Amino acid sequence: MKRPLILVTNDDGISAPGIRNLIRIMNDFGDVIVVAPDGPQSGMGHAITIEATLRCDKVVIDKGPQIEYACSGTPVDCVKLAVNQLIDRKPDLLVSGVNHGSNSSINVIYSGTMSAAVEGALEGMPAIGFSLLDYAHNSDFTEAEIYIRKVTESVLKNGMDRGVCLNVNIPKIKDESIKGIKVCRQANANWEEEFEERVDPKGRTYYWLTGKFVNYDKGTDTDEWALANHYVSVVPVQFDVTAYPSISTLNKILSDE
Amino acid sequence: MKRPLILVTNDDGISAPGIRNLIRIMNDFGDVIVVAPDGPQSGMGHAITIEATLRCDKVVIDKGPQIEYACSGTPVDCVKLAVNQLIDRKPDLLVSGVNHGSNSSINVIYSGTMSAAVEGALEGMPAIGFSLLDYAHNSDFTEAEIYIRKVTESVLKNGMDRGVCLNVNIPKIKDESIKGIKVCRQANANWEEEFEERVDPKGRTYYWLTGKFVNYDKGTDTDEWALANHYVSVVPVQFDVTAYPSISTLNKILSDE
Repeated sequence: MKRPLILVTNDDGISAPGIRNLIRIMNDFGDVIVVAPDGPQSGMGHAITIEATLRCDKVVIDKGPQIEYACSGTPVDCVKLAVNQLIDRKPDLLVSGVNHGSNSSINVIYSGTMSAAVEGALEGMPAIGFSLLDYAHNSDFTEAEIYIRKVTESVLKNGMDRGVCLNVNIPKIKDESIKGIKVCRQANANWEEEFEERVDPKGRTYYWLTGKFVNYDKGTDTDEWALANHYVSVVPVQFDVTAYPSISTLNKILSDE
Repeated sequence: MKRPLILVTNDDGISAPGIRNLIRIMNDFGDVIVVAPDGPQSGMGHAITIEATLRCDKVVIDKGPQIEYACSGTPVDCVKLAVNQLIDRKPDLLVSGVNHGSNSSINVIYSGTMSAAVEGALEGMPAIGFSLLDYAHNSDFTEAEIYIRKVTESVLKNGMDRGVCLNVNIPKIKDESIKGIKVCRQANANWEEEFEERVDPKGRTYYWLTGKFVNYDKGTDTDEWALANHYVSVVPVQFDVTAYPSISTLNKILSDE
């Protein structure tokens, strides 16, 4: 049997421990091509580079068998470049991450990691975004690896609904084990932002974004519930953002027919 | 009756004709505060600035009664700064645009204009993104204005479902009139990308993103159909991206209970 072709990307940059671990794991599943940002691209959402040029250079970072490219663009740029320019056949799987920090609930729309996975779904390939709820650079991926392998194996075997990708978040737990996997919906949560106002050495004002995460959603079918209860959360994610229930109301108010 | 407070932003930058026209129109509906990028931010999707500082300065661009701030960040940064730092009460309406070019179908997820509207919905305010299907800097907004006024009036009067914003696209038509408004779903369409590979003066390769828009969806209930048939398309947009129909299948394959 032919080994699957696996495209790996992330938003923390090609040298981040999260992606280095993910590449190591994926080498066991197939032939790996890495096309990842040459530096941090967190919070880039579904941004693409349309007003500037892109650089993309072949690099060697470790002794693994994968082929790697470092790209000057966003995570979504990386996927587009990989699929349309660098690889001559469609990958059998796209994996993005492992993100350093949560992409649960509303974070999915800000996340470069998840936007790369969504772009994979748009291009018609099964795609998974992995995130570990640990911002530390020296995170321990040992337990996460068990679940990354399990989800990857399942997706390679069963495929994925067209136009859907997976948002997989893995809790950080000390002194006990993860309880298992829960398939969930995205919790209704948000960031209550504050900006820290500072003054630069020349006397001009600038701002830093800070914020507090607030979960309004007590549903036990949500990703936030699963993570708080020591489960890995898996949310299927789509790119049709139409709010179907609102169509009929709006029709009454706005339509000209 | 108190005049509504209207927040205006865009992704083409604060000096683009699209937003200047939108500000002029909104001054008739309420008290206007503009917080918009200080330069082009097209294709930025839901990107936010988390690794860098933000600048935001009060500016005067024309003789209108609005208050204006030019911000160094993305459209979503502008909304967050406006709501959490610059304005002391929640705006009654957010309008974003008028974008120079279409944000129909899949463009909604790449669009900074629409991401600003989605961020407004997230912050709990009625929000509308307006786009005109004309990339020209000297676009004619005369006919567009009729529909911008109509949709704005309706939203100020009727409000909006919680967590929903509107993606309004206005066709560019010569020599005849727009037929009216259609409430639609997002068409299943995509970009078939190509990258133009070039070599810089130092001999190093770089890329430009180019692409062809392809509509796979022949549905007469889609935004692409409406626009092609000379209607203004209105798609209600939400930020819950859970693919609900996939949950039960995944449960069988992945869940540990």
